[in-house]
Amino acid sequence: MSSQPFSALPFLPISTGLIENLWMEDAGYGDLTTRSLGIQDHPAHITFTARDDQIASGVEEAAALLKQLGASIDYAIPSGSRALSGTLLLEAKASAGQLHLGWKSAQSLMEWSAGIATMTHKMVTLAKKISPMAVVGCTRKAPPLTRPLAVKAVLAGGGVMHRINLSETLLVFAEHLTFMNFDIGKAIGRLKQTAPERKITVEVETIEQALTVAQFSPDILQLEKFTPQQLHHLHERLKFFDHIPSLAAAGGINPENIADYIEAGADIIVTSAPYYAKPCDVQVKLEAA
Amino acid sequence: MSSQPFSALPFLPISTGLIENLWMEDAGYGDLTTRSLGIQDHPAHITFTARDDQIASGVEEAAALLKQLGASIDYAIPSGSRALSGTLLLEAKASAGQLHLGWKSAQSLMEWSAGIATMTHKMVTLAKKISPMAVVGCTRKAPPLTRPLAVKAVLAGGGVMHRINLSETLLVFAEHLTFMNFDIGKAIGRLKQTAPERKITVEVETIEQALTVAQFSPDILQLEKFTPQQLHHLHERLKFFDHIPSLAAAGGINPENIADYIEAGADIIVTSAPYYAKPCDVQVKLEAA
Amino acid sequence: MSSQPFSALPFLPISTGLIENLWMEDAGYGDLTTRSLGIQDHPAHITFTARDDQIASGVEEAAALLKQLGASIDYAIPSGSRALSGTLLLEAKASAGQLHLGWKSAQSLMEWSAGIATMTHKMVTLAKKISPMAVVGCTRKAPPLTRPLAVKAVLAGGGVMHRINLSETLLVFAEHLTFMNFDIGKAIGRLKQTAPERKITVEVETIEQALTVAQFSPDILQLEKFTPQQLHHLHERLKFFDHIPSLAAAGGINPENIADYIEAGADIIVTSAPYYAKPCDVQVKLEAA
Amino acid sequence: MSSQPFSALPFLPISTGLIENLWMEDAGYGDLTTRSLGIQDHPAHITFTARDDQIASGVEEAAALLKQLGASIDYAIPSGSRALSGTLLLEAKASAGQLHLGWKSAQSLMEWSAGIATMTHKMVTLAKKISPMAVVGCTRKAPPLTRPLAVKAVLAGGGVMHRINLSETLLVFAEHLTFMNFDIGKAIGRLKQTAPERKITVEVETIEQALTVAQFSPDILQLEKFTPQQLHHLHERLKFFDHIPSLAAAGGINPENIADYIEAGADIIVTSAPYYAKPCDVQVKLEAA
Amino acid sequence: MSSQPFSALPFLPISTGLIENLWMEDAGYGDLTTRSLGIQDHPAHITFTARDDQIASGVEEAAALLKQLGASIDYAIPSGSRALSGTLLLEAKASAGQLHLGWKSAQSLMEWSAGIATMTHKMVTLAKKISPMAVVGCTRKAPPLTRPLAVKAVLAGGGVMHRINLSETLLVFAEHLTFMNFDIGKAIGRLKQTAPERKITVEVETIEQALTVAQFSPDILQLEKFTPQQLHHLHERLKFFDHIPSLAAAGGINPENIADYIEAGADIIVTSAPYYAKPCDVQVKLEAA
Amino acid sequence: MSSQPFSALPFLPISTGLIENLWMEDAGYGDLTTRSLGIQDHPAHITFTARDDQIASGVEEAAALLKQLGASIDYAIPSGSRALSGTLLLEAKASAGQLHLGWKSAQSLMEWSAGIATMTHKMVTLAKKISPMAVVGCTRKAPPLTRPLAVKAVLAGGGVMHRINLSETLLVFAEHLTFMNFDIGKAIGRLKQTAPERKITVEVETIEQALTVAQFSPDILQLEKFTPQQLHHLHERLKFFDHIPSLAAAGGINPENIADYIEAGADIIVTSAPYYAKPCDVQVKLEAA
Repeated sequence: MSSQPFSALPFLPISTGLIENLWMEDAGYGDLTTRSLGIQDHPAHITFTARDDQIASGVEEAAALLKQLGASIDYAIPSGSRALSGTLLLEAKASAGQLHLGWKSAQSLMEWSAGIATMTHKMVTLAKKISPMAVVGCTRKAPPLTRPLAVKAVLAGGGVMHRINLSETLLVFAEHLTFMNFDIGKAIGRLKQTAPERKITVEVETIEQALTVAQFSPDILQLEKFTPQQLHHLHERLKFFDHIPSLAAAGGINPENIADYIEAGADIIVTSAPYYAKPCDVQVKLEAA
Repeated sequence: MSSQPFSALPFLPISTGLIENLWMEDAGYGDLTTRSLGIQDHPAHITFTARDDQIASGVEEAAALLKQLGASIDYAIPSGSRALSGTLLLEAKASAGQLHLGWKSAQSLMEWSAGIATMTHKMVTLAKKISPMAVVGCTRKAPPLTRPLAVKAVLAGGGVMHRINLSETLLVFAEHLTFMNFDIGKAIGRLKQTAPERKITVEVETIEQALTVAQFSPDILQLEKFTPQQLHHLHERLKFFDHIPSLAAAGGINPENIADYIEAGADIIVTSAPYYAKPCDVQVKLEAA
Repeated sequence: MSSQPFSALPFLPISTGLIENLWMEDAGYGDLTTRSLGIQDHPAHITFTARDDQIASGVEEAAALLKQLGASIDYAIPSGSRALSGTLLLEAKASAGQLHLGWKSAQSLMEWSAGIATMTHKMVTLAKKISPMAVVGCTRKAPPLTRPLAVKAVLAGGGVMHRINLSETLLVFAEHLTFMNFDIGKAIGRLKQTAPERKITVEVETIEQALTVAQFSPDILQLEKFTPQQLHHLHERLKFFDHIPSLAAAGGINPENIADYIEAGADIIVTSAPYYAKPCDVQVKLEAA
Repeated sequence: MSSQPFSALPFLPISTGLIENLWMEDAGYGDLTTRSLGIQDHPAHITFTARDDQIASGVEEAAALLKQLGASIDYAIPSGSRALSGTLLLEAKASAGQLHLGWKSAQSLMEWSAGIATMTHKMVTLAKKISPMAVVGCTRKAPPLTRPLAVKAVLAGGGVMHRINLSETLLVFAEHLTFMNFDIGKAIGRLKQTAPERKITVEVETIEQALTVAQFSPDILQLEKFTPQQLHHLHERLKFFDHIPSLAAAGGINPENIADYIEAGADIIVTSAPYYAKPCDVQVKLEAA
Repeated sequence: MSSQPFSALPFLPISTGLIENLWMEDAGYGDLTTRSLGIQDHPAHITFTARDDQIASGVEEAAALLKQLGASIDYAIPSGSRALSGTLLLEAKASAGQLHLGWKSAQSLMEWSAGIATMTHKMVTLAKKISPMAVVGCTRKAPPLTRPLAVKAVLAGGGVMHRINLSETLLVFAEHLTFMNFDIGKAIGRLKQTAPERKITVEVETIEQALTVAQFSPDILQLEKFTPQQLHHLHERLKFFDHIPSLAAAGGINPENIADYIEAGADIIVTSAPYYAKPCDVQVKLEAA
Repeated sequence: MSSQPFSALPFLPISTGLIENLWMEDAGYGDLTTRSLGIQDHPAHITFTARDDQIASGVEEAAALLKQLGASIDYAIPSGSRALSGTLLLEAKASAGQLHLGWKSAQSLMEWSAGIATMTHKMVTLAKKISPMAVVGCTRKAPPLTRPLAVKAVLAGGGVMHRINLSETLLVFAEHLTFMNFDIGKAIGRLKQTAPERKITVEVETIEQALTVAQFSPDILQLEKFTPQQLHHLHERLKFFDHIPSLAAAGGINPENIADYIEAGADIIVTSAPYYAKPCDVQVKLEAA
């Protein structure tokens, strides 16, 4: 795993309210077991350690969560760091009652988040090995309500957001064209007129569609479920166009086949795969201080 | 897939505010593409159809989402229904602008939710085939911030919630006992005194621990990462106890091995597996009305 | 007033947002009088002192409230502490403007909260004097929207929550059975099958009902408006059962009669009385520093 | 109980979000018992009936709550109505699952709210019998976080709000004057200059203070813990002043002594007593439809 | 610009949540440019300086905003201070990523807020030069959703709030009287009876209306769109009344004509003009530290 | 005023919660005057009519606001419609109490919103008269917290959003370059690599800067405070470049000078002027029904 180009670790503001929601969904009325056992006032200590190789993510949020519950943080590795198995990720001190409240929320958050970051990173690494200019962009299909955390994890893994929401970029689907008699020329013409500050991306499903659309000079063709072979074929054909659009490959791309798509000529990979990666494994030790 | 025992389809209240958050994270400032194309006022029609066999879930929420955006709902299959590939799940009418706003949020929600419900249902079915009294209980480890939606999906699949949050049940971990010199007898004694309205569950990691704890008559032993063989062995040993605790198997259980655990004597399966199931496939048709 | 068994003082997380709501409902646009008098920048000092014997409660929240408004806290007695009349509860420094904003909100919160804690504590003490294993559990009937604060106060008084909300425990009312032809056997059977991780409590209103229900081995019988005599009678009759349920007495129990119920054999007292206790008296001194 | 002068029943807007919070604090994850019994889809019917004489209150909110949960409302008496024991207050239809979710929240809300309204109404009636111009104004000391609901209940009982929050009226306490060398003349002078659109109220604790303050022509004297005799005495003395302030009596006033205060010359009664009234009794019948 | 009488700088509490909303509406998902350039970890420094003469406002909020994003504040001039062109208003240190996130939100807030404060201050100064007892009260017509910030800015400029919302003062419009057969005597009578703790203000549009209303002794006449001449004329006529109401002039008053209104006899100026003042100019320097 | 090209009226979803905040900031505890007069139950009727020529805006939100307060809507002109003086905008029926609650909030919202829409429309019309491809894009500098409403008003006026927030487009300021040794080539190179799905805009302040930057082929040059003459000069010089960037003119552009900028060659106008337009005038009639 090599580090990302230029940039350092990702910075995204996460609100106090979001952190509050994280522990309130789990421990709004405290930890019944700890309270019933009468052990909550014991001084305690907690460590979170990587149990498999991973790109750490969600660490700042986990630290903020523990802090809101009264802990003092001794160490927190920056999200986006490469953490081999055994690496300490986060360490804190508080009462047993406080740590029991936040322990599992913090662990779940880091495991889920690192799962996304790690798969993103793997795909980025595989892509950039073949083409340093390649970009892995994640979609809007994160689990519902998790978007701020999911975006953070994608960035931690070295990916970018293909689009964070509907309001920020132009992406023409067939479902749009159905209301314009599928007149793609007219559609692209309108977008150039009404939204000149944004690139125009058009989703296509076949080589023929792609070639038709390309005549109207969109900025990007988004190729839905093309095989690498089809993509390569299209790439060759487009070489003869005056205005050559960027090629974004989407649909079913994962660590196994990403290299093939880049080899075939994809400039941008559009993927939802990292959102459904298996969570990484984070070991917790919670002990008397 | 057989239907759940007794119950009908699950009912869970979902707040207006939560539904609002669902579309606001995706379309708070509208759909730039649809708006820029100038097609938003066309009358339109949308259908969501199962593309693989699934337990429908999140349908009421998807319908509520489209309704908040101005659609009128023509049909919505109840969450928890078995839907073979090709089954219509949801159908609505609105303007093109309104449907484009909610289309993907509704689809993502239903796909993610059905993924959880379908794996839950599969595990429930496998377990009940062997023991009709068996229960599949899901954990607190859903992706962060998704709990209300995740619980709904578990119930839609015929599962139950092992515990929704820390505040409602007693579950003694080694991390609790570390503050009591690992005196499990004292711990169980205190819980019997301070929380007599709740069952006492103790997590154990070995047969020896299980037998030691069982002497103090907890209600349930939660067996962390036992093999089916170990579970069976414990089950046999416990037959000679006066007070026989229920056995909850946890850690790494999935559709492949759930039957073995039930055969071996597990009363309750505790699992996070459904939360990370692959989303189901829901096909959308959005057309001029 | 003796201290609670085992446990130390209660710990419950209270969110920044909740504290914010506390002062915003009273002082969202500042204190018009203080501002109009032009005295807000004077350095000032405030103390809150018990004016009657009480169990302090809401102190951490009152301190947090003053802190959000800019005060620095010099002293705060832990909630759950016994405070004789004259005991200092909370002390802080800030500008006159800041203290005038929070003074009454902090005072009201502590008075209301201590009212609940003090009556809870009184009932707990009376009960435990007779039976150290007795438990006082408070209901869901706190004033609307106050639940997190009310639960905190109950715990501060040494009580437990009978149930915090509908989603966490099983409590069968006649209003449930009306949909099952009043077949209690079938009802208990279903609950044992579908919710094996929770105890089963059934509410009954007469001795006859109690004896009928007891044949189906619920974990707890909740006796609605039984007299101590009726409870005692039932207690005697149940001695001949194989499986003897715990007895929870509910309805009209208060500091005057709680001892009778415990004497008669109640294991658990279920009460809403503390929520409507008279607030305690907290004296405030706000002066130039 | 006579009806209020002029006005009809009180109207206060209550937000969707507040209603949502009411049922979410109780049933956010549904009713475990109803769900586990498998009875939630039965058609059902619910009535709420006064079990003691009361001023109905919180009825619109209870109805809104049931509606959010899916019920259709058949009848709802307007808040502020006089309801003798046996009077139907609210009636609705829904599934058993839906009604079980909201039943107790709706009942608690109406009982608590009617408790406030009924005591308020009693005090208003007693006061107006002696002086039709008398006003009963409630303070800011409602239980924390309940203000919108508490204000509604006060209005339903025919009371007014003495002040809803710190930001809207001028009320000078000794705690303000401590920062002005207790120079009341200077204080009143400043308020006349800086806040000419508001009346000036000054709290006093003795007749002497009252007479001193009266020389500076405040609009209202708020008499803290005066006896009716002291109030009467002051009232006589003030007759010789050019500018006679209104007299507001505060501190320890309740239905037993309110008449004495009005007789003695109080124009306004300032009280927190209704907030701690015993809740009224509302009987619920929830049955199969 | 002279300083306000008595008071020091205004103090208003602003919630963490409001500050969070300020940066979240602009930078919820970070600054794409900064992140894409890979410069976010550089140490950086920012200053905000007045570019025109102004009354500083919104400074505490801007500082809080930068702090939430991770900055440390080196200097912040108190809101309400007079700042000549070139005056340093706010200075902070953080990483380039953090400062780029908050820079424009902080600047916009201070510019908009100072625009309001500065015009308010100008009007206050002009009014008090003629009559030190004159008051400039701002209306409820701030841009939607900005009320807490707008009120803060008005106070910073030395103004007062005419009324913050509908719930706190009595202001009778013709739109009220239309439901009472325009019987102003009856209306004032009722208000004296039902709301004796508040002053009564009546809006009138002609001298004749004013004189009619004055017979019923309201506290204040609010003169809608009177010319200074009309106001003067009314003022003369009212001298012969026993009870002379205060005169509040409203409608179209601005820095150009305010002196005329005060000269003519207005006690109170009611205005919305400051809300639509041109924002002040604040220069930002963001550089490597 | 001609209608916008292609598109119909703008559609933007506005949440229930936002509407709730609109009336809660003004009438959270009702209208004291209406309530105190006892007129709230009278049937009433309200109309909102344009008093000057305007582009209607905020109408759907005003209608939603009245509806939340209980009104039924008889008529609402779509936002974006051209409304000559005297045109009916909105008409509703409800009780006097309900209409008094929402009247001013609805009016203020429509006046403020139409002010923005009308100036935007004026600038759009002036620009398109000269160049139909010209676009008027509004900035992020709307008054704090008003963004969703401000965006709606811009769209109603036929404008577009230059950028809604920091997270969606690439705009390089000198403040970014300060962290890269002002190496614009390196900066543009990085952005092409890391954000290939977005256009690259660079802000420049002089012709020289513009020409330097243009060598690195950005998509758009944003010209800060250029005169039309300077812009024209640059435009001529750029004709000799291979890759000619679009020109966005920003800083001090308004209805008076916009035509000059378009004539000089600007493709895009970037402006904050509409946010500070004078509100339009909307006349309200509220009468007995």
